[in-house]
Amino acid sequence: MPPHDHGGRLARAGEAVGRAGLDALVVAPSADLVYLAGYDPPPLERLTCLVVRPKAQPVLVVPALERPLAEDAGAGELAELVSWGETEDPYELVRGIVGNGAERLGCSDRMWAAHLLRLQRAMTDIRFDPASEVMGRLRAIKDTQEVDLLKRAARYADEALARLLQTRLETRTERDVADALTELLMEMGNDHVMFTIVGAGPNGASPHHEPTGREIHFGDPVVMDFGGRTDGYCSDITRTVAVGRARGELTRVHEIVREAQEEAFQAVRPGVPAQEVDRAARRVIEREGFGQLFMHRTGHGIGLEEHEFPYIVEGNEEPLRPGMCFSIEPGIYLPGEFGVRIEDIVTVTGTGAQRLNHAPRDLEVVR
Amino acid sequence: MPPHDHGGRLARAGEAVGRAGLDALVVAPSADLVYLAGYDPPPLERLTCLVVRPKAQPVLVVPALERPLAEDAGAGELAELVSWGETEDPYELVRGIVGNGAERLGCSDRMWAAHLLRLQRAMTDIRFDPASEVMGRLRAIKDTQEVDLLKRAARYADEALARLLQTRLETRTERDVADALTELLMEMGNDHVMFTIVGAGPNGASPHHEPTGREIHFGDPVVMDFGGRTDGYCSDITRTVAVGRARGELTRVHEIVREAQEEAFQAVRPGVPAQEVDRAARRVIEREGFGQLFMHRTGHGIGLEEHEFPYIVEGNEEPLRPGMCFSIEPGIYLPGEFGVRIEDIVTVTGTGAQRLNHAPRDLEVVR
Repeated sequence: MPPHDHGGRLARAGEAVGRAGLDALVVAPSADLVYLAGYDPPPLERLTCLVVRPKAQPVLVVPALERPLAEDAGAGELAELVSWGETEDPYELVRGIVGNGAERLGCSDRMWAAHLLRLQRAMTDIRFDPASEVMGRLRAIKDTQEVDLLKRAARYADEALARLLQTRLETRTERDVADALTELLMEMGNDHVMFTIVGAGPNGASPHHEPTGREIHFGDPVVMDFGGRTDGYCSDITRTVAVGRARGELTRVHEIVREAQEEAFQAVRPGVPAQEVDRAARRVIEREGFGQLFMHRTGHGIGLEEHEFPYIVEGNEEPLRPGMCFSIEPGIYLPGEFGVRIEDIVTVTGTGAQRLNHAPRDLEVVR
Repeated sequence: MPPHDHGGRLARAGEAVGRAGLDALVVAPSADLVYLAGYDPPPLERLTCLVVRPKAQPVLVVPALERPLAEDAGAGELAELVSWGETEDPYELVRGIVGNGAERLGCSDRMWAAHLLRLQRAMTDIRFDPASEVMGRLRAIKDTQEVDLLKRAARYADEALARLLQTRLETRTERDVADALTELLMEMGNDHVMFTIVGAGPNGASPHHEPTGREIHFGDPVVMDFGGRTDGYCSDITRTVAVGRARGELTRVHEIVREAQEEAFQAVRPGVPAQEVDRAARRVIEREGFGQLFMHRTGHGIGLEEHEFPYIVEGNEEPLRPGMCFSIEPGIYLPGEFGVRIEDIVTVTGTGAQRLNHAPRDLEVVR
């Protein structure tokens, strides 16, 4: 793969900063920094930040001991490197770069509060806003190379699931199955596993369930929701299977969720407000009387982060645009009984949408 | 191991909040939340936070879809659980909990800026301060069980290093050696590997070097700095070895760093200001004319996080106290040539200090 166009991204970010009425963006180690400069240092108590201004060269502020790390990463070719020593005040340094007369700064969403509070102390007359209004929007529209990476990540996830389901789930614990998924995701070629949720029986009714030592029994519905990362880009898929046999109630609920997921997918096309996709899924589930048991939004953007713009949620009137990539993952959760969720990543095309995941969405009865 | 005393920690945190003149602490998913409540949800764009006030029951604010996760973790026994739905405003919810009349809140160091900025918008007349003045101090003093966990983590690190050095380093790449360390750390029993720095030859002069495909040659000095985590508690060790033979310059620099590390260790005892430990190491290195090439502080606290209070740095006059655990890791970095760093974790005892790492500190010549 060719390298990402960091120079172009930095230029577009600079323009967007100006349009948003900000004097500068202050970008901490996070996906924002990876996106703009390909630099991924550990987020630590020592301040590292990239200052992006309209019509000015970006400046990367780094602790002196990480200057060689930044240089090795090629950050010096994209930005002016300014380093600070252990007994210096890096917040004053940022103030000097931002300059007198600045009134509003954007601050990356994942900057640590400890850093933001100290920046605010150093610049008491400046208003800070979340940078996501700029960075979230820029990052939400993926270029072809990014969509290809998300497709690869989705393929790895599909394949990991297929291989898992060739093995027997019954009598294994949730944790064993989660560990097996982790191994399979790495074997496929991912460089990192983000999370593996495995919820059997009643545990499936907890959307963010942490896998436990609970054994999987004959007749259990099992929710599996997991994601890995390849070359920086994430996967995220959910399937709910039945072990041994599917009881009638499970079959019915699964069919409702499958239809809700399909309706939401069909609602995706350029110009449609994000919330309409949420409404399309919710309409099906509400019609069947399970509205109260679908207590989360329908989806979230995905890219360098598992969760990013656009959020597929009531209230988000942002129109969908080609290149946006997000999850569609309605669910129904019956406390004390079981849960069902079905999730694919989709990308908005010029005329509609395309699924990046291709694992079967019908209820599979597995061993 | 018995469970940690979360109830006692919450009570002490509530008292410390009052003493610090704060109306409440707002604790985001992070080591602070693990320390206080044993709850470790993923840090996400949905607000989760624990509100700790003097003489009041703690309140844990969670997204509705994570309420079962919080209940399973036993958080409901320590705090009142308050959940919010996807289209509700959790920042207003926190404002209601904090109540009218509040003037100063502490905010955990690792809370995301996106959350802090929205809390600040919801409470414009409240001053926010970093919670580390409270939480950092509480967490800095480890109890016996925590010191035991840090000892176990250190033993795993020592043993991983010993096993690595039984294998041949020459002709392997930095990345291969880093991967081998990762595997060894997991085999020892760690549940997570935090980082593995392997810097051969000139790459050793970059303190936070990211392992590359560079091959290790006969005669190379190699800096290895790595850490894992077991039951939540971290290790962090650095050794510099010579492959095949040690050149005179390396032997001399290594001996200086070894002496600096020993002098710093000897300086540790209750009541001594943290900066004196830094000065003890720096004095040796400056005396030998390498002061400019030791460009980082001498150490950092360690516990649930790799870096935490107390920082062993010039300007930190905080007196050391029994139970504090931190690294002592002086180094000398010759750009374009090589680097040397030696690091142990130590704990402050009633009368002096004890090393938790026991790997040899003399310059080892390995294959």
